Amino acid sequence: MAHKLVIKRGKKAGAAPGTLVHVGEHNNAEVTLQVIDYDQHHLREFELHHPDDCADLLTSDSISWINLNGSHQVPIIESLGKLLQLHPLVMEDLLNTDQRPKLEAYDGYLYIVVKMLQFCDKTQEIRTEQLSLILSDRLLISVQEHPGDVFNGVRERLRNGRRQRLLQADYLAYTLIDAVVDHYFLLLESLSDQIEALEGELVTQPTPNTLSKIHHFKREMLLLRKAVWPLRELLSRLMRDENPLIGDETRLYLRDVYDHTIHILDTIETLRELLVSMLDLYLSSINNRMNDVMKTLTLIATIFMPLTFIAGVYGMNFEFMPELGYPWAYPAVIGFMLIVTLGLVLYFRRRHWL
Amino acid sequence: MAHKLVIKRGKKAGAAPGTLVHVGEHNNAEVTLQVIDYDQHHLREFELHHPDDCADLLTSDSISWINLNGSHQVPIIESLGKLLQLHPLVMEDLLNTDQRPKLEAYDGYLYIVVKMLQFCDKTQEIRTEQLSLILSDRLLISVQEHPGDVFNGVRERLRNGRRQRLLQADYLAYTLIDAVVDHYFLLLESLSDQIEALEGELVTQPTPNTLSKIHHFKREMLLLRKAVWPLRELLSRLMRDENPLIGDETRLYLRDVYDHTIHILDTIETLRELLVSMLDLYLSSINNRMNDVMKTLTLIATIFMPLTFIAGVYGMNFEFMPELGYPWAYPAVIGFMLIVTLGLVLYFRRRHWL
Amino acid sequence: MAHKLVIKRGKKAGAAPGTLVHVGEHNNAEVTLQVIDYDQHHLREFELHHPDDCADLLTSDSISWINLNGSHQVPIIESLGKLLQLHPLVMEDLLNTDQRPKLEAYDGYLYIVVKMLQFCDKTQEIRTEQLSLILSDRLLISVQEHPGDVFNGVRERLRNGRRQRLLQADYLAYTLIDAVVDHYFLLLESLSDQIEALEGELVTQPTPNTLSKIHHFKREMLLLRKAVWPLRELLSRLMRDENPLIGDETRLYLRDVYDHTIHILDTIETLRELLVSMLDLYLSSINNRMNDVMKTLTLIATIFMPLTFIAGVYGMNFEFMPELGYPWAYPAVIGFMLIVTLGLVLYFRRRHWL
Amino acid sequence: MAHKLVIKRGKKAGAAPGTLVHVGEHNNAEVTLQVIDYDQHHLREFELHHPDDCADLLTSDSISWINLNGSHQVPIIESLGKLLQLHPLVMEDLLNTDQRPKLEAYDGYLYIVVKMLQFCDKTQEIRTEQLSLILSDRLLISVQEHPGDVFNGVRERLRNGRRQRLLQADYLAYTLIDAVVDHYFLLLESLSDQIEALEGELVTQPTPNTLSKIHHFKREMLLLRKAVWPLRELLSRLMRDENPLIGDETRLYLRDVYDHTIHILDTIETLRELLVSMLDLYLSSINNRMNDVMKTLTLIATIFMPLTFIAGVYGMNFEFMPELGYPWAYPAVIGFMLIVTLGLVLYFRRRHWL
Amino acid sequence: MAHKLVIKRGKKAGAAPGTLVHVGEHNNAEVTLQVIDYDQHHLREFELHHPDDCADLLTSDSISWINLNGSHQVPIIESLGKLLQLHPLVMEDLLNTDQRPKLEAYDGYLYIVVKMLQFCDKTQEIRTEQLSLILSDRLLISVQEHPGDVFNGVRERLRNGRRQRLLQADYLAYTLIDAVVDHYFLLLESLSDQIEALEGELVTQPTPNTLSKIHHFKREMLLLRKAVWPLRELLSRLMRDENPLIGDETRLYLRDVYDHTIHILDTIETLRELLVSMLDLYLSSINNRMNDVMKTLTLIATIFMPLTFIAGVYGMNFEFMPELGYPWAYPAVIGFMLIVTLGLVLYFRRRHWL
Ligand SMILES: [Mg+2]
Ligand SMILES: [Mg+2]
Ligand SMILES: [Mg+2]
Ligand SMILES: [Mg+2]
Ligand SMILES: [Mg+2]
Ligand SMILES: [Mg+2]
Ligand SMILES: [Mg+2]
Ligand SMILES: [Mg+2]
Ligand SMILES: [Mg+2]
Ligand SMILES: [Mg+2]
Ligand SMILES: [Mg+2]
Ligand SMILES: [Mg+2]
Ligand SMILES: [Mg+2]
Ligand SMILES: [Mg+2]
Ligand SMILES: [Mg+2]
Ligand SMILES: [Mg+2]
Ligand SMILES: [Mg+2]
Ligand SMILES: [Mg+2]
Ligand SMILES: [Mg+2]
Ligand SMILES: [Mg+2]
Ligand SMILES: [Mg+2]
Ligand SMILES: [Mg+2]
Ligand SMILES: [Mg+2]
Ligand SMILES: [Mg+2]
Ligand SMILES: [Mg+2]
Ligand SMILES: [Mg+2]
Ligand SMILES: [Mg+2]
Ligand SMILES: [Mg+2]
Ligand SMILES: [Mg+2]
Ligand SMILES: [Mg+2]
Ligand SMILES: [Mg+2]
Repeated sequence: MAHKLVIKRGKKAGAAPGTLVHVGEHNNAEVTLQVIDYDQHHLREFELHHPDDCADLLTSDSISWINLNGSHQVPIIESLGKLLQLHPLVMEDLLNTDQRPKLEAYDGYLYIVVKMLQFCDKTQEIRTEQLSLILSDRLLISVQEHPGDVFNGVRERLRNGRRQRLLQADYLAYTLIDAVVDHYFLLLESLSDQIEALEGELVTQPTPNTLSKIHHFKREMLLLRKAVWPLRELLSRLMRDENPLIGDETRLYLRDVYDHTIHILDTIETLRELLVSMLDLYLSSINNRMNDVMKTLTLIATIFMPLTFIAGVYGMNFEFMPELGYPWAYPAVIGFMLIVTLGLVLYFRRRHWL
Repeated sequence: MAHKLVIKRGKKAGAAPGTLVHVGEHNNAEVTLQVIDYDQHHLREFELHHPDDCADLLTSDSISWINLNGSHQVPIIESLGKLLQLHPLVMEDLLNTDQRPKLEAYDGYLYIVVKMLQFCDKTQEIRTEQLSLILSDRLLISVQEHPGDVFNGVRERLRNGRRQRLLQADYLAYTLIDAVVDHYFLLLESLSDQIEALEGELVTQPTPNTLSKIHHFKREMLLLRKAVWPLRELLSRLMRDENPLIGDETRLYLRDVYDHTIHILDTIETLRELLVSMLDLYLSSINNRMNDVMKTLTLIATIFMPLTFIAGVYGMNFEFMPELGYPWAYPAVIGFMLIVTLGLVLYFRRRHWL
Repeated sequence: MAHKLVIKRGKKAGAAPGTLVHVGEHNNAEVTLQVIDYDQHHLREFELHHPDDCADLLTSDSISWINLNGSHQVPIIESLGKLLQLHPLVMEDLLNTDQRPKLEAYDGYLYIVVKMLQFCDKTQEIRTEQLSLILSDRLLISVQEHPGDVFNGVRERLRNGRRQRLLQADYLAYTLIDAVVDHYFLLLESLSDQIEALEGELVTQPTPNTLSKIHHFKREMLLLRKAVWPLRELLSRLMRDENPLIGDETRLYLRDVYDHTIHILDTIETLRELLVSMLDLYLSSINNRMNDVMKTLTLIATIFMPLTFIAGVYGMNFEFMPELGYPWAYPAVIGFMLIVTLGLVLYFRRRHWL
Repeated sequence: MAHKLVIKRGKKAGAAPGTLVHVGEHNNAEVTLQVIDYDQHHLREFELHHPDDCADLLTSDSISWINLNGSHQVPIIESLGKLLQLHPLVMEDLLNTDQRPKLEAYDGYLYIVVKMLQFCDKTQEIRTEQLSLILSDRLLISVQEHPGDVFNGVRERLRNGRRQRLLQADYLAYTLIDAVVDHYFLLLESLSDQIEALEGELVTQPTPNTLSKIHHFKREMLLLRKAVWPLRELLSRLMRDENPLIGDETRLYLRDVYDHTIHILDTIETLRELLVSMLDLYLSSINNRMNDVMKTLTLIATIFMPLTFIAGVYGMNFEFMPELGYPWAYPAVIGFMLIVTLGLVLYFRRRHWL
Repeated sequence: MAHKLVIKRGKKAGAAPGTLVHVGEHNNAEVTLQVIDYDQHHLREFELHHPDDCADLLTSDSISWINLNGSHQVPIIESLGKLLQLHPLVMEDLLNTDQRPKLEAYDGYLYIVVKMLQFCDKTQEIRTEQLSLILSDRLLISVQEHPGDVFNGVRERLRNGRRQRLLQADYLAYTLIDAVVDHYFLLLESLSDQIEALEGELVTQPTPNTLSKIHHFKREMLLLRKAVWPLRELLSRLMRDENPLIGDETRLYLRDVYDHTIHILDTIETLRELLVSMLDLYLSSINNRMNDVMKTLTLIATIFMPLTFIAGVYGMNFEFMPELGYPWAYPAVIGFMLIVTLGLVLYFRRRHWL
């Protein structure tokens, strides 16, 4: 079964704006907070279980990246919101995993939503996980739905490299977005491999299953475009809006990831149009084969119907059919039948049916 | 029968601008005015039958929400208009239930039109009800077509919560629009459930009825988009235009509902494209099955026509057909027939028709 | 025969800019000028036959509406142009009935072109008549192709109502445009009734004629859109451009008719997409029926071809066919035939062909 | 053979910018320069063979229109360029007949490219000729590919009318563009006549040739749109850009021709969509006829296959077939055959196949 | 096998921004640096093997064009980056051959990416090579994937012509882009020749192979558009952005190449729409031929089924069939058969099936 197009919001409709209700797949896992706290000279890495334990990080001079795995526990999000004095709408959105990628500026912090995407080889489907980022002066909070993400490279570099640690929280936010977008390329590689394989199948031996697959990939492209398209505007605004939280050097890097996003959207569009063209090809090839089948039928009928008729005539039981008595009549009729057949075959040759 | 695409305007054409004529379904119900009048400390809730009874509410310091159920009675709307000194065009629009969602700024008040939508499970159709809002300083008038709406949550929160009562009429207007938009998500859930069920049906056993349903949902999506699309611009202007009636805090909340609207429009577009792709899939699967049918026919004809012809030949009544006299002739002919059949079956195997 | 897509311009090509040549259907009718001259206290209504007789109206303090029925007489238009000192291009355009709706500002007057549309029930076609308006300080000239228009309501209100007479010529121009746009709604009602009837026909019993009708309405929608689309920009500019001829109160009214125009364009677009979807439905239903026909044929052939073959075998005239002599052979063959038939019927049942 | 979609540039690729190479159809004709030199009181008209002979015209106070027939001779263009001190890129473009319509402002002159179009009745194709205009203070150079153009009306008016001679070179340039655009209307008249005739053919008796014609006209519309579309922006800029070479009065006239261009583009778009709809109609009507053919076949087969089977049964040669001996058996079988036929006919009637 | 739609990025995902990894086809060739160093009076041309050998060129007064063949060697790019103090993102992009054409301004230099395209006649595919340009004050670096390019004309002109050598590095960059764009015209010539040949094939004798070719060219057009489309904005910005590196005279030339790009995009769009129309034509012609086949079959069946039935009737073995004894019965039946045949032929004539 394919993934849902629209995620159920349950009791959400009619609730007060800012009501804290989790919207998304049911999830029982414990929530963890992975903290990496660093400055140019030191790096501490530890795990917490409640936002209130982060309080002292907020006032320190070092840069803190708090990664919350699991956006489904309302009290945790509520505590986090209180601690950081988040706007109720931000808290609401942290709990709602069915959102468009977006950027919202609040007093003192930026709220960013993007989608982490993964291609599941077994179901041939794109799996989505929502990533929320809250960026303030020396602090970056990332909230994801489940443990497991695409940021191990970033963590490794923080632990090892000095260069990375010189930079501010805005650059850290950029590296997370960059890692997400880099994984879109991997996703497109998988998808385009599959689509090109399908294109080959279409030429060599199309089956009704080929058709379902074309439809399936068109559907996935629709969902993919829906997840990536808003990122374009998000990054363009992040890069251009005047906001003291984003430094000039980081803007150069944002231009780079913006550029990648456009490249990805171009590729999505190209794959979509290719799928449309493949469907046309499929339809035409069905029609071509139907034509072949019809020609075979018509050929057989056109040759054997007259012959059977002739045989039928001489199978009639009239008493006075003089031909029946002539010794040469039988070979003559057989010969006539051969001539008719030959004539029809020649006729079909000329009309390029044979 | 499907709902009308264009609502009859009757005697409206050629009438003076600002002429007060009801445009919409005939309606005999009595009109009621539900009033909720509140400030931070008190809340009064009562029902009136004529706008003139509201006169004292307009001058009080408390915030008044007057909800008029039934926009079909011209004299009631006329009285309301006189009382509030509404522009004749606003009065005309209050009576006209066939309008695009829109926002119009007048001196001292804003006039807003949105559509409340509901998915009727029985007819599988979207039902529309028009909601007009008139927002002025401490006053919010809502005019709907029939009693019954999506605002019970809002009323409950006004009665219970203090927080809500601290806020001004602009925030109240926002909560009504937010409740309307929240119900669009419910509508989309129903629609996408139906469309996904249809998608399953398409794969397992498509019938001509599947086709009608695809067309039906395409039609509904057209109407849905027509109702939601203008909301985008409406909210964008409400959020950005400089108008002292809308406070800064409310603008933040409007950004949230604006965001939801874009999400909804994205989903509508995705569902529409999915329906187009489903139609292509349906057409292809019909063609595929036609191919199967034709192959069966051609197979049968190609095998039995030659056999029947051979039988016909030996059914001819010529006197001089020496074969007829040989004892082994009958089994020989039957054997030849078997060989022909076998040959054809092998031939069809090779061409992948069997 | 359908109306022409492009109106012949005859000797127009290559003529000097501003050359006065009538472009449109041939027309012999006499030209009349209906004058309504009014101020707050008086109203005079009379008919003239030559523009020169209007000279004194131009200098009076009252507001004059001169309605010219018949734009085909070059000398009349020339006199009018001289009297009002119109630009040669305006005079040329007054004579040319094949124009896009447009707004042109000249020194001291505005030149407006719109299309009056009517749905002809007999031919099921939209009929177009061009309306030119020249609006200056206390003067409104309207030029139409034939006598007969949609302004009787406006005339009635001028004669009776005081309110209307208080307002200036700009408001009068607005009421004419509003009357034209109001009739577009009537047109859309007729069209959508026809299209919905067609939609019903499509489901119950589609015929090749249904197809022609779908094409016909698509054609009409193309022409309709071409006539209405430019009105949107025309009204937007009329409403926004700073021009002393248009008063602030009239701008509010123009916003209303602008809004109607967008509503109409939305509806046109919806009807167009509905027609496209109807065509898809039609094509699919033809394919469905073809499938049924083919199934019937294949069924019949698959059952009777083997049976006829068996009968043919026992119709062969070999001397040594021992079966022919057994008394139970005939009922045995008939029984075998029944079994074959039954087997095939069961097979078709299982493949859902019966 | 259809005209080329892309014109060969031969040795052009890789050449220096501003390299003077003719791009276009090979042409051997002699180049002529037709000069009309005029002021309010005098008009001289003569022919030259080399640009250098024009030198004195450039310094005189009269207005000079130099029309060069033949853009294929590199030395002529080179001399012209030197004389007028044209930018190398302009000289290059004068020689290149495969360009988009465009407007380029240089110091002291404007360079304009438009396309003269003609419908060739024999090949049913649009023929293109490039027209370059160079407009400076009292000078207008027009460069066309071959002798013969649409400017005879303009020449006539210059010779006769005083009014035209009062105006400056900018107005003259406008009249040339206006004449070109006026001929687009003639072209559209021819095309729409052909397309409407095709539409009639489609309804009465569509043939495979009808299909080729639809494709042919779609192709022509593509090329037409490509030639006209850029004119819109060209005229809009000519009309709006601040350039002392274009006077205010001429801008009014440019607005008129701009308006015509939009009208033409609207009509092109309408014709294109009509052609798309016609193709759908054609496809559906083929399918309809195929349906008819299949029904006929199925009818015949369904009636005669059972009958032939029955006849086959009684043609079997079993010794013990008691029916064969009864005198009423033959008429009974014939009667049974009639009943079967009748039953099938009634069945087909009920399914609306007959 | 067709070229890949998405190029593998290998270990790139998750790497640090600015990580230097080659993305593209594997390549072992040695990297060479071709230097042309010139001023108005001198020109030196030589080859180097390491960027560090260029150090003295950077400080000289002459203009240096350093062309690096081979973007696959990370250490070379790294040295080049260090020498020129390039931003890490630029170094990363120099190594990544899968990029959209783009323009990025950095302090003191511009970074430009365009695509060199070539039509491979053997595989009928477009081959892409990425060209990066780094333009600073008296320096132009070009980085391409392989040796071999479209710049021999430029080199020749530098060696011979004085005029070219007067100009600055910005003009040199322009000439390279111009040469690239000029080769797009050659590509379009090849493509349009192939597509027109295909169009001819479609009319004379369409085969299933024709269909694959249409799909193939649609695919190529998608990739072509993806490579050219971003160039439009790139050139528009290069021409308009205020950047001291681009001189006024060069801007005139950039307008010329911008114009060519739009022309190319127009042609791509036209070819794409032509291919879509060709596919429709192909589908219709298949349907037409299927119609012909079906008509033939129906004709044959409709004529011979009744005849065979009649023969079958008189082949029945009833004892009491009086007709069988009459001497005129056989010729009468044959005559009746002829009449039936004739009647059917006339009937088919009237329905235009023959
Ligand atoms: Mg809510
Ligand atoms: Mg939210
Ligand atoms: Mg998830
Ligand atoms: Mg990156
Ligand atoms: Mg693109
Ligand atoms: Mg798009
Ligand atoms: Mg298509
Ligand atoms: Mg009205
Ligand atoms: Mg209104
Ligand atoms: Mg309603
Ligand atoms: Mg909400
Ligand atoms: Mg979208
Ligand atoms: Mg379609
Ligand atoms: Mg003219
Ligand atoms: Mg005009
Ligand atoms: Mg008319
Ligand atoms: Mg109105
Ligand atoms: Mg819309
Ligand atoms: Mg060049
Ligand atoms: Mg050029
Ligand atoms: Mg030409
Ligand atoms: Mg004109
Ligand atoms: Mg239009
Ligand atoms: Mg378009
Ligand atoms: Mg189509
Ligand atoms: Mg990276
Ligand atoms: Mg990069
Ligand atoms: Mg390459
Ligand atoms: Mg060039
Ligand atoms: Mg174009
Ligand atoms: Mg386009």
